[in-house]
Amino acid sequence: MISFINIPENSDFSIHNIPFGVYNQDGNHAACTRLGDIIVDLHQCMQTQLFDGLALPKGIFHKSTINDFIGLGKPITTEVRKRIQKALLVGGFLDNDIFKDSPLFVNAEKVKMVLPIHIGDYTDFFSSKEHATNTGLMFRDPANALLPNWLHLPVAYHGRASSIVPSGTPIRRPNGQTMPDGADKPIFGPSKQVDFELEMGFVIGKETNLGETISTDHAEDYIFGLMLFNDWSARDIQKWEYIPLGPFLAKNFASTISPWIVPMEALEPFRVEGPTQDPEVLPYLQYQGNKNYDIHLSVDIITQQGISQRISTTNFKYMYWNMCQQLAHHTVNGCNMRVGDLLASGTISGPTADSYGSMLEICWKGTKPAQMPDGTERKFIHDGDTVSMHGWCEKEGIRIGFGACDGQVIS
Amino acid sequence: MISFINIPENSDFSIHNIPFGVYNQDGNHAACTRLGDIIVDLHQCMQTQLFDGLALPKGIFHKSTINDFIGLGKPITTEVRKRIQKALLVGGFLDNDIFKDSPLFVNAEKVKMVLPIHIGDYTDFFSSKEHATNTGLMFRDPANALLPNWLHLPVAYHGRASSIVPSGTPIRRPNGQTMPDGADKPIFGPSKQVDFELEMGFVIGKETNLGETISTDHAEDYIFGLMLFNDWSARDIQKWEYIPLGPFLAKNFASTISPWIVPMEALEPFRVEGPTQDPEVLPYLQYQGNKNYDIHLSVDIITQQGISQRISTTNFKYMYWNMCQQLAHHTVNGCNMRVGDLLASGTISGPTADSYGSMLEICWKGTKPAQMPDGTERKFIHDGDTVSMHGWCEKEGIRIGFGACDGQVIS
Repeated sequence: MISFINIPENSDFSIHNIPFGVYNQDGNHAACTRLGDIIVDLHQCMQTQLFDGLALPKGIFHKSTINDFIGLGKPITTEVRKRIQKALLVGGFLDNDIFKDSPLFVNAEKVKMVLPIHIGDYTDFFSSKEHATNTGLMFRDPANALLPNWLHLPVAYHGRASSIVPSGTPIRRPNGQTMPDGADKPIFGPSKQVDFELEMGFVIGKETNLGETISTDHAEDYIFGLMLFNDWSARDIQKWEYIPLGPFLAKNFASTISPWIVPMEALEPFRVEGPTQDPEVLPYLQYQGNKNYDIHLSVDIITQQGISQRISTTNFKYMYWNMCQQLAHHTVNGCNMRVGDLLASGTISGPTADSYGSMLEICWKGTKPAQMPDGTERKFIHDGDTVSMHGWCEKEGIRIGFGACDGQVIS
Repeated sequence: MISFINIPENSDFSIHNIPFGVYNQDGNHAACTRLGDIIVDLHQCMQTQLFDGLALPKGIFHKSTINDFIGLGKPITTEVRKRIQKALLVGGFLDNDIFKDSPLFVNAEKVKMVLPIHIGDYTDFFSSKEHATNTGLMFRDPANALLPNWLHLPVAYHGRASSIVPSGTPIRRPNGQTMPDGADKPIFGPSKQVDFELEMGFVIGKETNLGETISTDHAEDYIFGLMLFNDWSARDIQKWEYIPLGPFLAKNFASTISPWIVPMEALEPFRVEGPTQDPEVLPYLQYQGNKNYDIHLSVDIITQQGISQRISTTNFKYMYWNMCQQLAHHTVNGCNMRVGDLLASGTISGPTADSYGSMLEICWKGTKPAQMPDGTERKFIHDGDTVSMHGWCEKEGIRIGFGACDGQVIS
């Protein structure tokens, strides 16, 4: 498949991708996709005959989020994506001089990408066995690093939806209570241990009613697409607050998402088998087929001066619990899902220290500082540092990426 | 203050109350208040001259929630409430034959009250010292029942917003994983320990931006009003899942709220001093003035056959951490608030066994079953049981109530 739009080599936005996002130009929001460095305005596409016969509601792409579009259901969203993809090929519907220099095509550098969805509820899982083991080794009993429930269910907690921001939003270092080692009372001040957590999140595309369940067999019908997710964490605040009800202020000061939702259809060629689950899981968590995805992931730290260091390279395929299991578990008690709900994976750590998904693990609680090219070292994230996450799939000449998930920590 | 509407003795909806809600009649939503057994339709009030000069946006009361109304800010919402209150007095604006038998007044029995707000995020605190102590005594170290952080900060976790339902919605007994005592692997099935948690929730009336904080001094500006809240809990699921990230499926199958939001203005006469906080809290949690409220609370269990037993009588005044402290803590890291966010108190337990706010505590982990008038006993909630919560303030002839917060557990 060759597009008439020039696509730079190694672009995340190949003709095989066609992700969905929302851009803001002078206060005007529209849904869009991206090919190479070109934003394709879907509201403008609606003014052409591209979607004729699909009975899309008027103005469906002229909104501040794509929840209503996603809610139309996969039969429609898949067809829309196919038409866009086909129209962007050489000789396709949009390969026409009348569209050149029209507002249908916009230079990606000239627009601001915003949060593409209204997130009703955000849930964060804890589904990487390596990550769960690492935190157990560091903070609990090294002989029993995994807690007793971990191999039997995908552990999760509810997160804060209001503070989820798109890539590029500065992240203010949070203030909070901490209990210094050996102190007899807590102190208040800026967190000294701001960390990232490399995660992926999936977006719910189909709602359920309260009391309904979703089986692992049907879970994929409810998953619209994926994005990168940085679950910013303040480790010192977390350590003091999290027993017994879990993380709260240590997490809810901000989470960053990449602004493009990559639909599951685009990820189809990259399915892989997941890890063997032993002991056998309960029947409602059993599944058929390949439910993991081979998505390369990286994290760079970029200093205020622009000095960059790749700090982690890992892969989404390592996840012990897959998305279908997560969704089956989440709804097995009848908890309802709404279109736009976001379910994140939890920190994605691989088997080796250079594939861990947080500074906590990479630097092992600060005992093994990471070296930066400018001679400084990092145990956690410094003011001025940008954490830049990337994700991409590659296979047989097909490349699909997620765009950057960036955030700079400021004081 | 005497209204021209007849108000039954002990009605929750006296002329001093004027709460806000949303009713649904044949699919048509409107904001409303209630006086005695009469619903006053605020959208219909808009068609009169009652709100002239207030510059209320067109259709502000003709929506499925009152978020937009609340978001107008206290100077306007307070004035709207005052005008309604005055108009309902003998000789007031609405005491006029032309409104009799008009759709402005509706019999409360003929309408269905719905969820009055879109809840963006819901947070649950754990702010009753008696409740925290009881759970510590039962499940942790009796010698150190309160965890080390508890006296230093209002512990909280994020809950699920999608499954919050209005009073009267049936509650399906959740399925889930549990680990029976002595077993070596978990089992799956209906929870055997469905419980209520008697709480109060407050509704955010003013948004903040990410990075902003709210001081205890200014917190009241951000609190629109209060409602009753039943944080349904499945204790057996909770016990197995909650370490280390807190409750998840044990809570998110449903929470019930009373459908009326009682504005803070109505509760003003019922302020009382809170418990002494020792040790002294950090400066950002210190406060001036009376921030607790004397609100009587009760819980009844009503069997399928209609046999009723009052199982708890307690008071909101017992809370160790007050709402201003909760809000200051929640935002001290810059976490942003949105209009309609709900912050619940956590289980409200008083000092004696008949004032505990959950079956877990009342029956002390099932060791002291509660006796019902029909000769049956309860350790937790049975299928067919309705849990009915009430809350009211009374002082010098003034009575203000919250309406029922009811839910029947079904299989």
